[in-house]
Amino acid sequence: MSIEAHDRHDRVRRAVEALGGRFDQRLSVNAVVREQHGRGEGYAALLPPDAVVWPHSTEEVSAILNICNALEVPVIPYGAGTSLEGHVTAPQGGVCVDLSKMDQVLEVHEADADCVVQPGVTREGLNAHLRDSGLFFPVDPGANATIGGMISTRASGTTTVRYGTIAANVLALEVVLASGEVIRCGGRAPKSSAGYDLVRLFTGAEGTLGVITEATLRLHGRPEAVASGVYSYPGLRGAVDTVGEVIQCGASVARIEFLDEVQVRACNAYSKLSLPETPALFIEFHGTPAAVAEQIERVTAVAASHGGTLLDKTTEPQRREELWRARHRAYFAARALRPGCECVVADVCVPISGLAECVERTRAAIDREGLIAPIVGHVGDGNFHVLFLLAPGVANDWERMERVYDSMIAHAHQLGGTCTGEHGIGLGKRDKLVAEFGEPVVSLMRSVKHACDPRGILNPGKVFPGLANTTDLLPR
Amino acid sequence: MSIEAHDRHDRVRRAVEALGGRFDQRLSVNAVVREQHGRGEGYAALLPPDAVVWPHSTEEVSAILNICNALEVPVIPYGAGTSLEGHVTAPQGGVCVDLSKMDQVLEVHEADADCVVQPGVTREGLNAHLRDSGLFFPVDPGANATIGGMISTRASGTTTVRYGTIAANVLALEVVLASGEVIRCGGRAPKSSAGYDLVRLFTGAEGTLGVITEATLRLHGRPEAVASGVYSYPGLRGAVDTVGEVIQCGASVARIEFLDEVQVRACNAYSKLSLPETPALFIEFHGTPAAVAEQIERVTAVAASHGGTLLDKTTEPQRREELWRARHRAYFAARALRPGCECVVADVCVPISGLAECVERTRAAIDREGLIAPIVGHVGDGNFHVLFLLAPGVANDWERMERVYDSMIAHAHQLGGTCTGEHGIGLGKRDKLVAEFGEPVVSLMRSVKHACDPRGILNPGKVFPGLANTTDLLPR
Repeated sequence: MSIEAHDRHDRVRRAVEALGGRFDQRLSVNAVVREQHGRGEGYAALLPPDAVVWPHSTEEVSAILNICNALEVPVIPYGAGTSLEGHVTAPQGGVCVDLSKMDQVLEVHEADADCVVQPGVTREGLNAHLRDSGLFFPVDPGANATIGGMISTRASGTTTVRYGTIAANVLALEVVLASGEVIRCGGRAPKSSAGYDLVRLFTGAEGTLGVITEATLRLHGRPEAVASGVYSYPGLRGAVDTVGEVIQCGASVARIEFLDEVQVRACNAYSKLSLPETPALFIEFHGTPAAVAEQIERVTAVAASHGGTLLDKTTEPQRREELWRARHRAYFAARALRPGCECVVADVCVPISGLAECVERTRAAIDREGLIAPIVGHVGDGNFHVLFLLAPGVANDWERMERVYDSMIAHAHQLGGTCTGEHGIGLGKRDKLVAEFGEPVVSLMRSVKHACDPRGILNPGKVFPGLANTTDLLPR
Repeated sequence: MSIEAHDRHDRVRRAVEALGGRFDQRLSVNAVVREQHGRGEGYAALLPPDAVVWPHSTEEVSAILNICNALEVPVIPYGAGTSLEGHVTAPQGGVCVDLSKMDQVLEVHEADADCVVQPGVTREGLNAHLRDSGLFFPVDPGANATIGGMISTRASGTTTVRYGTIAANVLALEVVLASGEVIRCGGRAPKSSAGYDLVRLFTGAEGTLGVITEATLRLHGRPEAVASGVYSYPGLRGAVDTVGEVIQCGASVARIEFLDEVQVRACNAYSKLSLPETPALFIEFHGTPAAVAEQIERVTAVAASHGGTLLDKTTEPQRREELWRARHRAYFAARALRPGCECVVADVCVPISGLAECVERTRAAIDREGLIAPIVGHVGDGNFHVLFLLAPGVANDWERMERVYDSMIAHAHQLGGTCTGEHGIGLGKRDKLVAEFGEPVVSLMRSVKHACDPRGILNPGKVFPGLANTTDLLPR
């Protein structure tokens, strides 16, 4: 063991000892537990932490950070583990702070349409809590992620086209800084010009600037009327062009999701639907009954002008739920196309005007490489995903995937778009961050990181290339 | 002259000399010009810079910062000078960078509803440029501010209730850092999870982190139908309670502005209206003709349940324009109530549930102090202003105003609100920033500031208490 490794080992040992004294059964060094916390849902290598701890309060999170900061031991915040970019891995070891026990909805202010929650509340848990109010929390990334995780990756999803990303729906945060100091930024006013927007700085920081211990969220009134429709198209282009025109004409849709023919086939098989196996748009409308009726008519006319047919329109809650459940299970449906495969979920986002070309080129590249890879997307935001299904251990599959993915990102950058619409940088896209903005911007982000976390203990190895020792990234 | 003052004088002299060589007639040390740039529209003391320079390009801004950073000379970015909190004053002297010549709309992308502008473009200029497109830029703080200034103060205004603050409408920025380095952050995709949200960090930073030299803005489709209505109330409470209920029931209004009886009287006199001199709401509706008609009916019913009467409803553009012109001239109308007075425009923002009580208490406090001070507000955001009319030099007037204003802010803080909804901190509210968040938060903001501007040349003395030598704040 090198001197450096020995020193690291000793510091971790002392941190675990100190934490054990305080957290007892709520600290674990068990190998199985550590492995469970060593990767998210993405394809990143398994990189387990040295220990996992379950705090119950902000004070406990503060105590953990205090100990770890003093000993320069890495801290990895963990929510539901649904991250797709290796955010929850521990490439340098350290202590995983599992926030899932901090899962209380603390306050709901109906008159102000806001609420205060702990970070371990999941979006489904929050909406279940709100069931009897007239309100709901709209951000819906598909997975039942925690609020803390969603804030940390700047999540969005199917309803962003109407309600915005999570960044538009966080009013205030309580954050524990690397030093253990607890701060509260933002407030409950609908807007503010008071000083730097620290709320937006922590939103999307992937746990590298602080650990979120409480969030005040904006809620929305439940729409009086909701209707869903499935539009079927002979080809990909008509579907995507419909999206551009719907957005441009200002039609207010609450969801507008694209599924290519491969994904429709997968959903038919997995969720027992019987849609024509051609590209489709799943659209949802929210509003007053009259407004919803008007919007459906309008969107149906736009769709028809691009060759789209309204197959199925429903205001019936159970039917709608079936439809959206099928959409949310797209990931599992895709995996079932190639049992035993690994799934790499690609994520790019482009200006709407470039969307059709970007999706078309991607579909052609996938087919050229002979890969199985459905395409789905929150296309109202210019955001789409490819679900690459890859045989484990078949290097050729991975190389072909990487060629397609790299060209998708390069194309997105040419169009003025981004290498990630909603999944974040994590481990997987650190080089793409530099490709997107250039070294001076990343260097400025690094300065901000250093100002917040001088010892670099918070989720090290994520976001920034080079901060992690790359040999540490191999599975242990 | 102290050694320190002598040194400062010498550094400024060398900077002005270096800039003069490059900018020639576009640099001025003329006393009148300096005084014109030495305060905004607010009541801050006149604190002129040592020189004013008018760059034409990003490269020129970079050259200015390069020179000033090397000599540690303050740089104060200047747009239209409409700031109300002393943002454009030069408490430590230095070079005012007047960006008004960088006033080009560089690109309009109709299909993506975005545009790229230089920072000196005004909101009216931008909308004039967009006149023949189907798009408009919605953020409307009243004053014809520049886009750069609006971004820097995180401006909002009458349409925020529907279209969001400027923070929701900036996609990307080009910024010159203190060192002169030029960076570009954000992009043209509708959303992104790539790294820290630097766009939101510079938005509202009041020119203390960098000089904005280009902005990519989100535009919106012009609504098919627009209607405005004036609702008159027997008392303040009914008007404000209407707002809460309209927001809560999800009625989509595009503007919802409150004017108290004093302001209505002022507008009648100044803008030749003939409204009943009781509290009023000015409301605007955007949407399809059917949706607008439905919303008017709905809001009118809510208003009636709180004692409000719809006086005047119009879809006719000229009539609407008259109405909103009267609202935009509220400041001048108020000043005309007390000719020769100074006007201090107070700004607080609270959760909607606390709005009625906060406005009522404020009205009572104003009356108790015997001040003349109309109240107006973007009440759909919980944001309102008091226009305190004060006799110049009458200390007693100012003391009474300060008592009322301090109690407004204390009350806003008790309610979870903010000391500024849209005007920013500037010179005037630095202590209130600390009162709002506490020293640890302000200290974190300071660390971020230091990371971006290690020598502290960018708009020094603003936002943070204590960075400026307070004796410098006296008029010179």
